[in-house]
Amino acid sequence: MPSHPKPTAFTGKRVLITGGLGFIGSNLARALVRQGAEVTIIDSLIPEYGGNLRNLAGIESKVRVNISDVRDHHSLPVFVRGQDFLFNLAGQTSHMDSMADPQTDLEINARAQLAILEACRAHNPAIRIVFASTRQIYGRPDYLPVDENHPLRPVDVNGINKLAGEHYHLLYQQVYGIRSTVLRLTNTIGPRMRIKDARQTFVGIWIRRLLEGATFEVWGGEQLRDFTYVDDCVEAMLLAASRKEAEGQVFNLGGPPPVSLQALAEMLVELHGSGDFKVRVYPAERKKIDIGDFYADGRRIEKTLGWHPRTGVRTALARTLAYYRREFRNYV
Amino acid sequence: MPSHPKPTAFTGKRVLITGGLGFIGSNLARALVRQGAEVTIIDSLIPEYGGNLRNLAGIESKVRVNISDVRDHHSLPVFVRGQDFLFNLAGQTSHMDSMADPQTDLEINARAQLAILEACRAHNPAIRIVFASTRQIYGRPDYLPVDENHPLRPVDVNGINKLAGEHYHLLYQQVYGIRSTVLRLTNTIGPRMRIKDARQTFVGIWIRRLLEGATFEVWGGEQLRDFTYVDDCVEAMLLAASRKEAEGQVFNLGGPPPVSLQALAEMLVELHGSGDFKVRVYPAERKKIDIGDFYADGRRIEKTLGWHPRTGVRTALARTLAYYRREFRNYV
Repeated sequence: MPSHPKPTAFTGKRVLITGGLGFIGSNLARALVRQGAEVTIIDSLIPEYGGNLRNLAGIESKVRVNISDVRDHHSLPVFVRGQDFLFNLAGQTSHMDSMADPQTDLEINARAQLAILEACRAHNPAIRIVFASTRQIYGRPDYLPVDENHPLRPVDVNGINKLAGEHYHLLYQQVYGIRSTVLRLTNTIGPRMRIKDARQTFVGIWIRRLLEGATFEVWGGEQLRDFTYVDDCVEAMLLAASRKEAEGQVFNLGGPPPVSLQALAEMLVELHGSGDFKVRVYPAERKKIDIGDFYADGRRIEKTLGWHPRTGVRTALARTLAYYRREFRNYV
Repeated sequence: MPSHPKPTAFTGKRVLITGGLGFIGSNLARALVRQGAEVTIIDSLIPEYGGNLRNLAGIESKVRVNISDVRDHHSLPVFVRGQDFLFNLAGQTSHMDSMADPQTDLEINARAQLAILEACRAHNPAIRIVFASTRQIYGRPDYLPVDENHPLRPVDVNGINKLAGEHYHLLYQQVYGIRSTVLRLTNTIGPRMRIKDARQTFVGIWIRRLLEGATFEVWGGEQLRDFTYVDDCVEAMLLAASRKEAEGQVFNLGGPPPVSLQALAEMLVELHGSGDFKVRVYPAERKKIDIGDFYADGRRIEKTLGWHPRTGVRTALARTLAYYRREFRNYV
């Protein structure tokens, strides 16, 4: 018997997700399908990024997938026309890759974002947008937890270009009335994240090594970080898209209490029941773009939208691990 | 008898100026030639920008001019190799043009800047750079005067892309040790500025209209602004390039005491001895990207480099007017 969930702001609505085959995008697509939305996904499936067709397992027939690149600006008008919502998640996420190939990072994280907004302005100015930004734009914190008024001093090319992408969204709201909400994501973990390497999150490669029975490396170890479970992140995105108060606003997704990388590694080994890691001195070439301790102040989104993370880091890790025990071969 | 000026940090040095046929670039080139530098200029001579061959009158034989566009990234290694200094002034400056054609603004103010820095990193990491940024990156001031710690909230595409350009310069210093200084310019006026229209500064079109005997328009009129005379701006650039303490730093060029646009217009008419202007309500489409009152706090550069503006606004206007009385036909 089919379930008849309660209608939501997305039931029967047309929703476009850029980067929708990726980690967060696909989890978001799954939630939207459950709520009865008509979901269209654009994803480039660039091998180093997060897109993976396996992420749609079970909902393949319920979404429309278009394999293409947001840098192909000629295609954008077709995609944005007629959509009620746009979750703009396509992005280059690797800090190291942004330093090795800064122009590609600029093309995707800045130039394509501007092209997407121009397409909305010309073809669908009534669309409602949520843009996935990053805590990377803050750089090394002056104080903790980091609130939304903290100075923005990105420490890598990725942070600079993501900041430009964020600014374009806010500007197009102010000048053209195109309603956007910016969410500054911190470390998000959960099923469907990239585990092939550390390009999306270092937790990915930890889990891969652990499940391969290999020793994984913890760089530094003392740094404090906060983590958001992907279901909580998806919930924040849906709230942001559906609430009037969120229009034109910027919100941190503050995670649960921060944890050191060493403690996180220990928790992971404990949850798996076996495994080993070694702590490595932070490599010099990475040190320059490392931000040290970081955790976000989530009070603004809690106050404005009533969102707070429901999932603690132990539960998040346990669920993630369980997923990859089953799905390992589809992600490496 | 040739003059034998005292040697400076630039005497006998190789200096590259991007945008060197423009307003500030050409005044800088003239100062550098006087100090015995070997000056190379790159300029695209895009008609809407500030480049004008007339700006080199009298020093044509003493500089090397290459007409090309900084977006032609293949040419950049050739230019940066062997240079001691780079004054990086090439840019799209019109706020309105950046809204009408945001991608071109991004190409010049962000993408080309990244390409210039990549060329320096690969071919001349010992180069010393001064980057011309803008007060536009601050957006509408929270307080006055605006110091360098003021939040950065650009209100147009130009401000967003110039901010990215500034960030790239600071990042390449932090990560790769490429020594840069960022100067955030406010309204600069003086001989060799564009007077064809308001693309570079509204004072340009005022002077054109005045000299044509036509009524010029003052939009709003109550807004307070500060103005830097171009010779003072050039002096700040030379100081910034030659002083160790300036490396990796950001400085406002704080102008003389601020003046309202209406008072400035009155001063201009008085200096010219005749003329007329009318005050117009601020046009709606411009209002959205206007920043209201603005004047910069110049204490940081005064304290660090001992620079302060020597030229008051009346003298600046008088000299500018005198130049265009002579040179009008070469600039319209």
